[in-house]
Amino acid sequence: MAKTATLTTRKADASRRRLVADRQALMRTFIRPESDAGRQSLVKYMEQILFGLHDFLKNHVGITEEIGLKALAERFTDTRISEHPEKKLEQVIADLIERIAPHAVNVASPYFVGHMTSAIPYFMVHLKTIVAALNQNIVKIETSKLLSIVEKQVLAKIHRLVFQKNEAFYRDHVQNAHTALGCFVEDGTLANYTALWVARNRMLKPTGDFPGVERGGMAAALNAYGIDRCVVLVTRFGHFSIHKAAGLLGLGNANVLAVDADARGRMDPRALEGMLEALRTSKERIRVMAVVGIAGTTETGAVDPLDRLAEICKTHGIHFHVDAAWGGPTLMSEKYRHLLAGIEQADSVTIDGHKQFYMPMTCGMVFFKDPFMLDAVAYYARYVNRPGSVDLGIRSISGSREANSLILDSALKIMGSKGYALLIEHGIETARAFAREIAQRPLFELVTPPVLNILTYRLCPPELKEKLRNVPPEEARRAARTLNTLNITLQRLQRQAGKSFVSRTTLAGTGPVPEGKVVLRCVIMNPMTTLDILKTILDEQESLYRNHLA
Amino acid sequence: MAKTATLTTRKADASRRRLVADRQALMRTFIRPESDAGRQSLVKYMEQILFGLHDFLKNHVGITEEIGLKALAERFTDTRISEHPEKKLEQVIADLIERIAPHAVNVASPYFVGHMTSAIPYFMVHLKTIVAALNQNIVKIETSKLLSIVEKQVLAKIHRLVFQKNEAFYRDHVQNAHTALGCFVEDGTLANYTALWVARNRMLKPTGDFPGVERGGMAAALNAYGIDRCVVLVTRFGHFSIHKAAGLLGLGNANVLAVDADARGRMDPRALEGMLEALRTSKERIRVMAVVGIAGTTETGAVDPLDRLAEICKTHGIHFHVDAAWGGPTLMSEKYRHLLAGIEQADSVTIDGHKQFYMPMTCGMVFFKDPFMLDAVAYYARYVNRPGSVDLGIRSISGSREANSLILDSALKIMGSKGYALLIEHGIETARAFAREIAQRPLFELVTPPVLNILTYRLCPPELKEKLRNVPPEEARRAARTLNTLNITLQRLQRQAGKSFVSRTTLAGTGPVPEGKVVLRCVIMNPMTTLDILKTILDEQESLYRNHLA
Repeated sequence: MAKTATLTTRKADASRRRLVADRQALMRTFIRPESDAGRQSLVKYMEQILFGLHDFLKNHVGITEEIGLKALAERFTDTRISEHPEKKLEQVIADLIERIAPHAVNVASPYFVGHMTSAIPYFMVHLKTIVAALNQNIVKIETSKLLSIVEKQVLAKIHRLVFQKNEAFYRDHVQNAHTALGCFVEDGTLANYTALWVARNRMLKPTGDFPGVERGGMAAALNAYGIDRCVVLVTRFGHFSIHKAAGLLGLGNANVLAVDADARGRMDPRALEGMLEALRTSKERIRVMAVVGIAGTTETGAVDPLDRLAEICKTHGIHFHVDAAWGGPTLMSEKYRHLLAGIEQADSVTIDGHKQFYMPMTCGMVFFKDPFMLDAVAYYARYVNRPGSVDLGIRSISGSREANSLILDSALKIMGSKGYALLIEHGIETARAFAREIAQRPLFELVTPPVLNILTYRLCPPELKEKLRNVPPEEARRAARTLNTLNITLQRLQRQAGKSFVSRTTLAGTGPVPEGKVVLRCVIMNPMTTLDILKTILDEQESLYRNHLA
Repeated sequence: MAKTATLTTRKADASRRRLVADRQALMRTFIRPESDAGRQSLVKYMEQILFGLHDFLKNHVGITEEIGLKALAERFTDTRISEHPEKKLEQVIADLIERIAPHAVNVASPYFVGHMTSAIPYFMVHLKTIVAALNQNIVKIETSKLLSIVEKQVLAKIHRLVFQKNEAFYRDHVQNAHTALGCFVEDGTLANYTALWVARNRMLKPTGDFPGVERGGMAAALNAYGIDRCVVLVTRFGHFSIHKAAGLLGLGNANVLAVDADARGRMDPRALEGMLEALRTSKERIRVMAVVGIAGTTETGAVDPLDRLAEICKTHGIHFHVDAAWGGPTLMSEKYRHLLAGIEQADSVTIDGHKQFYMPMTCGMVFFKDPFMLDAVAYYARYVNRPGSVDLGIRSISGSREANSLILDSALKIMGSKGYALLIEHGIETARAFAREIAQRPLFELVTPPVLNILTYRLCPPELKEKLRNVPPEEARRAARTLNTLNITLQRLQRQAGKSFVSRTTLAGTGPVPEGKVVLRCVIMNPMTTLDILKTILDEQESLYRNHLA
């Protein structure tokens, strides 16, 4: 093996000297080789990708930080495109393993518990390769054919998981060219845009001479409907894509209003009702375009009381959108799907495939209870997407689109809903066990216990904990600020040590200081992340504290 | 080899009977196998993907149509997610080759010349596999590190190709955390949204008490600026994403106004000046938000006179966006880059990676001349994208994002700009030769000669051609309608025969009938598509005409 590698390198060096762009060589890259030798090298490269990378990562369990970002960036400043080829594929792959991977983030490590990005089953890489090899474009049937049909089927499967309509409903819509149960998009952000775009267009639809907001614009729409502004209601824990959506769609992001949350970060239904009442009786003429419930907030994993919110929205005739980008797949666990009770009453739901469906980056999805809702954003063109066609680009925020639906469809077959349930349950149960562990350690304080598989905590040495409870308040404020600094430093030290990674955030509006409470954030989605690993992470934090911060 | 295959199948059948979701099996899918046997099967699957699929496609050069869409759709109506695993990876791959691929569209065939989707070099599949295996998320540095740096570098390379600023400019910005030369997005549609979003926010920026359109919304913005509406100007050949952008952004798509084009489909600069003058003197208070020039229209590949349009926009202080989703990579050909002269004066430019950079689906890009322009759409959040960080999600229409930039970066190294130039030149020159061939055949009429590598033509038998020239006009109209029907039928018959594929579109506003002229559309981007193949396609059309339509 070592010998082969040397030979390969030597060959690469030799061929490198004579790299010139020529038409014959170029043509060959468009034809997969027929000879055994040619085929074997292509397979060999795949082997390097699958295992060379893997073997490297195994020896670097955390995030390598031996070189800082700035120093790294200085190596990547050449902005000229080379005229002739610089490298062959084998050299590109070798560089990847030797030069790129060591400075990428090892999100697959079980010690990487800071973000919603994690290890994926190895077969996902194969599935993505299939999608690339087929290179279909889902925007129209003429460049995708069966893949558009597969997409409609898998959309119906997830729609059914969420909305649980009856068999007859799905028989009517699964392959209906005139309706859409949802849409694949780039990510949760685009899914949220799509949902609110639909909500906007349905609320400000054509009336009298007014052609509707999509055609006439926001200013004319408000004028036609005799209103001053449209607002979107969500707690302060809403993902920032909700604010971006309001900016993008011409509502203005100042019109995203924060509904109060309870101590556990969930929207307070009475606060929502109060706000609706206040808006109705305001001297400004205000219309509520949507209420956004969250099933798994980014910061703490909290789940809003979806059933209560759905009921209120129904009473007031308001579009109810649920951002379940994170929490959606919890529905596959019979044991925990009750945590999302009420989601089936939403008008629209966002779910990310690259989060808890464990798909490779990136795949978002948005679903609509009513299969005609996406008509509110339908567009046609002469060259594609003719009316009445099966072209999925008709009701889609994007244009060209890869067939990521094939990955989800295959993954559901390989895993089964039970397989996914096992992952979900591991996450929730490990998070609960970790919460108990944190609560037992005097140096730490559990800040938000896990509802799903996310929790936040902080380093909080007993002497500071004591001071927080103290009067005078000035001393409590000082202690709060000290704690914030302490946790910022701790998180940085641990990240730089390169063995493990928890993230940090600042929970606004909690604690005695206006800048909020800095917490460490732990997302448990990797089935290889055991309680023992999490204890090791706490041990490391304790020792960093004692050696550097105490 | 055959023996192994049989063994594998038998093993699959056996294992299939006992497929149950269990935690141990699940955990194994998260660990790449260490044993030689385990590794060899993963490699074997890749081999199947690379060659099983290829060998199938080789025998089906066109688009297989032996079963219609409706019949196909009836097989994909089960909407329940299986509780236990249904298939193992090897079975999924076998199904793909035997059941999915035969009904996908063979976009890699040199006989598939109907759309902007084509064959890609085989190494692109390896590169996409690398991206999936690394599974980085470009939204933030904590989940991408070096990959964000690589992305900034390749953005600068393409920016330089387009705008040709000097070395000092690129040294300042290539790795500057506070500026952005552009952004990777899902596709050209999202790129156009981003460009027009930036144009909107810069035009309706904060003034006095007004916080800007992004914060205050469109209605308040028009009010603050004392205008009735904002418009976007483009010819009727503009991609439909321009209309979608105006709808999405709250301008209203009725405010996309069509500037007259000349006979070859290019915007007429005098018509633009006339329209600007008419808008300025209109009794409505109208502001022009952007003029969109096109470098390669979707229908005919026409290129607007970018230099003239840039000049006019500069004079009037209007944002000039160039949609070069298709034509952008022409800049890599020294021989033909002059066709896009003036693009370097644009304020923003859209280019698609999955079109003439031959990347797998999908990869869009948008570039800005001024590295501070993307600040107009910057968003921050507590948990990611903190101000001052290198997080690329700060100035991006999407959130989570895969590292497609690594594919482009590697491809540029493998191909060199000369390699890409050879592809571009092949397309343009083959299209020209094909145009000559069409002009020589009495049965056909060349409708739009190629500027880049797209042309349109139609079947036009001499007796009908004669009638078109005839008075009375009623007879000419009848002939025009007959021709339209004839070409619609011809295109369908050829598609259904499954050997080759040209697309069709309707050129609005041309010919004697208001419904426009139906044409056959040919996009030449596959280096394996030779003039001989194109002649065969014409021969087939002639014989279809004589046997079925004459």
